[in-house]
Amino acid sequence: MHFKIAFIGFGTVGQGLSEILLEKKEMLAEKYDFHCTIVAVSDIMKGSVYDENGLDMVKILEIVKKGEKLDEYPTGIKGMDGLTTIKETNADTIVEVTFTDVKTGEPALTHIKTALGAGKNVVSTNKGPVVKQAVELLEMAASNNVHYGFEGVVLAGTPVLNLARYTLAGNKIKGFRGILNGTTNYILTRMEEGMSYDDALKKAQELGYAEADPTGDVEGLDALGKVVILTNVVLGKNLDWKDVKRKGITEITKEDIEKAKSEGKRWKLIGSAEVQQDGSIKAKVWPEKLPLSDPLAGVGEAINALTFHTDELGSVTIVGPGAGRRETGFSLLIDLLEINRKL
Amino acid sequence: MHFKIAFIGFGTVGQGLSEILLEKKEMLAEKYDFHCTIVAVSDIMKGSVYDENGLDMVKILEIVKKGEKLDEYPTGIKGMDGLTTIKETNADTIVEVTFTDVKTGEPALTHIKTALGAGKNVVSTNKGPVVKQAVELLEMAASNNVHYGFEGVVLAGTPVLNLARYTLAGNKIKGFRGILNGTTNYILTRMEEGMSYDDALKKAQELGYAEADPTGDVEGLDALGKVVILTNVVLGKNLDWKDVKRKGITEITKEDIEKAKSEGKRWKLIGSAEVQQDGSIKAKVWPEKLPLSDPLAGVGEAINALTFHTDELGSVTIVGPGAGRRETGFSLLIDLLEINRKL
Repeated sequence: MHFKIAFIGFGTVGQGLSEILLEKKEMLAEKYDFHCTIVAVSDIMKGSVYDENGLDMVKILEIVKKGEKLDEYPTGIKGMDGLTTIKETNADTIVEVTFTDVKTGEPALTHIKTALGAGKNVVSTNKGPVVKQAVELLEMAASNNVHYGFEGVVLAGTPVLNLARYTLAGNKIKGFRGILNGTTNYILTRMEEGMSYDDALKKAQELGYAEADPTGDVEGLDALGKVVILTNVVLGKNLDWKDVKRKGITEITKEDIEKAKSEGKRWKLIGSAEVQQDGSIKAKVWPEKLPLSDPLAGVGEAINALTFHTDELGSVTIVGPGAGRRETGFSLLIDLLEINRKL
Repeated sequence: MHFKIAFIGFGTVGQGLSEILLEKKEMLAEKYDFHCTIVAVSDIMKGSVYDENGLDMVKILEIVKKGEKLDEYPTGIKGMDGLTTIKETNADTIVEVTFTDVKTGEPALTHIKTALGAGKNVVSTNKGPVVKQAVELLEMAASNNVHYGFEGVVLAGTPVLNLARYTLAGNKIKGFRGILNGTTNYILTRMEEGMSYDDALKKAQELGYAEADPTGDVEGLDALGKVVILTNVVLGKNLDWKDVKRKGITEITKEDIEKAKSEGKRWKLIGSAEVQQDGSIKAKVWPEKLPLSDPLAGVGEAINALTFHTDELGSVTIVGPGAGRRETGFSLLIDLLEINRKL
């Protein structure tokens, strides 16, 4: 199929996807019969441009990388904001990658609802809307005969949602546990080597893994959001933030790490959820001392991992990147290829 | 879609699939619109029965589990051998699960070619035909507009082929390395705990992991077959058995294990293949001392694992069961669901 795509938001993730689409154009056409034209880019900081016949993305990327505004693009209609771009362009598929307030889910939530309501596919790496309204949004997509993909909201381009839905098809998934936050796993890996928590955090901040205010990562809030998403999407439940027990890694000391080592164990921040006999969910984000024989124990650095508990195959674990500009951009291509396959 | 299925061979794997199809009938219909009737079962030891309107599989399983012949089944046509069943029944899909000579690939190879040539889908857990002729058989399936699925030939029901083809779609897979043989991994795990090689092998034999003649496993031949399959199917090459360097685990001593431990490492039998710059393949099965930070190092017992090296996501690892009656039977359902999705 031939997609007509509009980017709403054009930061590192959107640019990452654009580069992949340019570099892999021929392979995607040949191998998957996947074709696309980018008709619009609208970014609150960088401005916007729309051409119903398609934009030259090499030029767009050049402009953006020079730090210039999209007004510099020689042709096309300028100045359409996100919502207008969704509603009034000929795009059939919206790549929603704005900076979004996790608490309200906005502006992504409104963007996504508007697009689905207008009969346009949406692919997005925005966590907020999925945490808040995954089920409703998926139903809205279905009733409008379009698709809403969000593979990138957990483990970036490591295709865990795709794995659960297709590759593990036929299994009943009864629960999961995983290393869902790269920053904390990076910090624990450095502490394992003898660094103090404070030094490890500083190092994570230097490398851009952790933000100036690291609370979201180190207190387990980011992992908690992912537990909610996985529970609702993969286990088909309707779990609320407040129903997840949570403890971060800030209280883990060098002594705790050493003690675990002497027991042949390793601390990891584990997000998990299990369906109980009565159908309810037990979900938490909590530091756990894992024996080295646990597949999650060997997962170091900023790498993520997720173990699904299935009825037919027992435990199946996938290990892969949990962040990164290109890896997250790639998650959007997974969603686009998925829509392409369905159509 | 509604499949009409014939089982060629009806040992533990075929029985495993039958049980899954019975137990999951409603879920498969509801969730995947998957329906099937088993019209024939033909087994060289157990006899055969064919009813174009479908067999009562509860009864069939009862008969087989009592050790009786299929002649005891009250109705239907008896005595058709494998080839006749493939050619002369109304089955549209053949489940090929005979005991097969790995060297010649027979009788599975003839069964599969006959079925594909007759325009019937094939799903099979037989390694022989895939090692010998994967590319030809897939082309034959395509030119006859049918499907040939063999998810179970590597890592049983852990869906590595499905993962490579669909879930990692859009990536270029440049190579892989993995723990492809459960028996040797079980032996190494016991040795890690202090057991000698001989005792660990004996224990593996007691548990049914290793055969009376364990050569195929411990000398790395089984893993080598899987390296050939993965190279040809996932990397799209045409690798021959003879081009794979091979060394088994029989020379690993307790002292080697202890030495590795003291270095913070662990011995694993690793099967790997990498595409080289000139397009050629470097493939081997060889014992490797892995640092505990390697995702494969933490994989113990009879569990298998496979790391794909991709251009977009770097290393992505999947860990899951590599054998088992039910797990291998389930791999056939993965193939059937895949065909169902395509049709």
